[in-house]
Amino acid sequence: MTEYAATLDSIRAARETIAPWVHRTPIFTCAALDRLASRKLFFKCENLQHVGAFKFRGALNAVMRLPDDAARRGVVTHSSGNHAQALALAAKLRGIPAHVVMPTTSPRVKRDAVVGYGGRVIPCEPTLAARERVAREVAEDTGAVMIPPYDHPDVIAGQGTVALEVLEQIPEVEAIVAPIGGGGLISGIALAAKAQAPGISVFGAEPSGADDAARSKAARELLPQHDPKTIADGLLAGLGRHTWPVVRDHVDRIITVSDDEIVAAMRLVFERMKLVIEPSGAVSVAAVLSDAFRSMPGLGRVAVVLSGGNVDLSELPFG
Amino acid sequence: MTEYAATLDSIRAARETIAPWVHRTPIFTCAALDRLASRKLFFKCENLQHVGAFKFRGALNAVMRLPDDAARRGVVTHSSGNHAQALALAAKLRGIPAHVVMPTTSPRVKRDAVVGYGGRVIPCEPTLAARERVAREVAEDTGAVMIPPYDHPDVIAGQGTVALEVLEQIPEVEAIVAPIGGGGLISGIALAAKAQAPGISVFGAEPSGADDAARSKAARELLPQHDPKTIADGLLAGLGRHTWPVVRDHVDRIITVSDDEIVAAMRLVFERMKLVIEPSGAVSVAAVLSDAFRSMPGLGRVAVVLSGGNVDLSELPFG
Repeated sequence: MTEYAATLDSIRAARETIAPWVHRTPIFTCAALDRLASRKLFFKCENLQHVGAFKFRGALNAVMRLPDDAARRGVVTHSSGNHAQALALAAKLRGIPAHVVMPTTSPRVKRDAVVGYGGRVIPCEPTLAARERVAREVAEDTGAVMIPPYDHPDVIAGQGTVALEVLEQIPEVEAIVAPIGGGGLISGIALAAKAQAPGISVFGAEPSGADDAARSKAARELLPQHDPKTIADGLLAGLGRHTWPVVRDHVDRIITVSDDEIVAAMRLVFERMKLVIEPSGAVSVAAVLSDAFRSMPGLGRVAVVLSGGNVDLSELPFG
Repeated sequence: MTEYAATLDSIRAARETIAPWVHRTPIFTCAALDRLASRKLFFKCENLQHVGAFKFRGALNAVMRLPDDAARRGVVTHSSGNHAQALALAAKLRGIPAHVVMPTTSPRVKRDAVVGYGGRVIPCEPTLAARERVAREVAEDTGAVMIPPYDHPDVIAGQGTVALEVLEQIPEVEAIVAPIGGGGLISGIALAAKAQAPGISVFGAEPSGADDAARSKAARELLPQHDPKTIADGLLAGLGRHTWPVVRDHVDRIITVSDDEIVAAMRLVFERMKLVIEPSGAVSVAAVLSDAFRSMPGLGRVAVVLSGGNVDLSELPFG
């Protein structure tokens, strides 16, 4: 029997661990989007979470679960996205240092955000090899513990708390749809939801320009992400060794959507729901509006995770 | 003793009248904005109201209070803004026609929105004289009842329901800040709040480029709006005969803010609160962040009305 990275118990424990600091984010509904989707949608607003994304849950759980002696030396990661800010804030709340390796090409606003949460930014060349090397060096120099953005049991357990809330907040919910990048969010959700409500369906929403999860599911083996290209810049990563088995066994189906569909969905959420979401957060909305999803029978009540809201307002894709 | 356009009784009655259809909009808070304002702020999210603005409350109250024989002939207004959509939806809910006179220069998206709510758009020349003339002609031809956007007792009573909710939702609230254009919203709020909680302060927030209320308060007489120029396109109107006496007697002070302050406040709400608001809705945020307001003593808990969220996403002012 396969052992997965998290269990209902570890996810429930994560929820208790992070409860003092996370928002139990609200559920929004929207009649106009219900009409377009031909079913009742319930939007889980993780764009209203601290640091503007669900990433805070996983990073916080990983930081708070460190033993005191390890925690004292701090944490390190390499990321230019929401995980960087999430880890910086989590470390600040625990009172320990956070070292964040970021490519020199990262927008100033993202570096400033990490510094604003009390993190230390270490610049590096904009290649994955350089990022990994510099992060290892920082870990060796400082003794800091590496907290990766998704492929880690405590991170996955933290993200799974989204599903525990969804099951409480939406009576008789029949499916949950969430974006897939590295798979941390969907894995946590699938493990929590299927264990607690076995009849529920879990769908991954993936940009067609970064579709390693869809291809891997079809091939029944983990395939690498090749040269991803999508506006959903939070979903460029490929699945990892912890997340792939969960996606393989517990995610019912992956729905892929084009960048045009993502932008159209993002615009609808801005216009009709008055919520700011980032392109990666719009991917699950695009999925439920797709013909593939609309033609599925049943599923009268569907939770849609709006995963984040950190978008550069100077470069919104609304022409 | 001055008689005002609305009373606590008429506002409470309005609340009952419109209750089946309006959202009791939520209160948002934001630690980052609290720090900038140096006090605790409670944002009343009327951008999440039907049609994306508080205007639905007043229009709905006016439409629902019409006697059957008058209502049957429909309603008419001239507006290119949120009142047009609000009236169209209100009329649809009552099952009566709505005739909306709109200048030929109105953006297509605004005309489409009125039509989307089932309203009939009558195009006219883009002058106030033409709008008023055409609206009168429509009223004569059809027998429809004119429902103006703000200077009407039932409209003012409807907008006042915002304050009844704020007083319930925010314990020990000490002040309410709302935008001033024609004064319908601030009048309703001031009449409701001062009657129900006499110790409360009510502040109007006004663009310095459309500052007839500030000038009128200073002069103690109603002065006309001269050639208004502001990005807050919902606040171009001047006070009317019903709203001026309330602003004169029951609004504690008008805070004026520049367009730069309005855009900066709007950006903060997008970035930190992940809410879409229109420039007119950002004016009250700009007011509480102004030096004039920050230097006021006391007022530890302040309600800030986010009046609307209907903004053209293709023309956001974020450079």
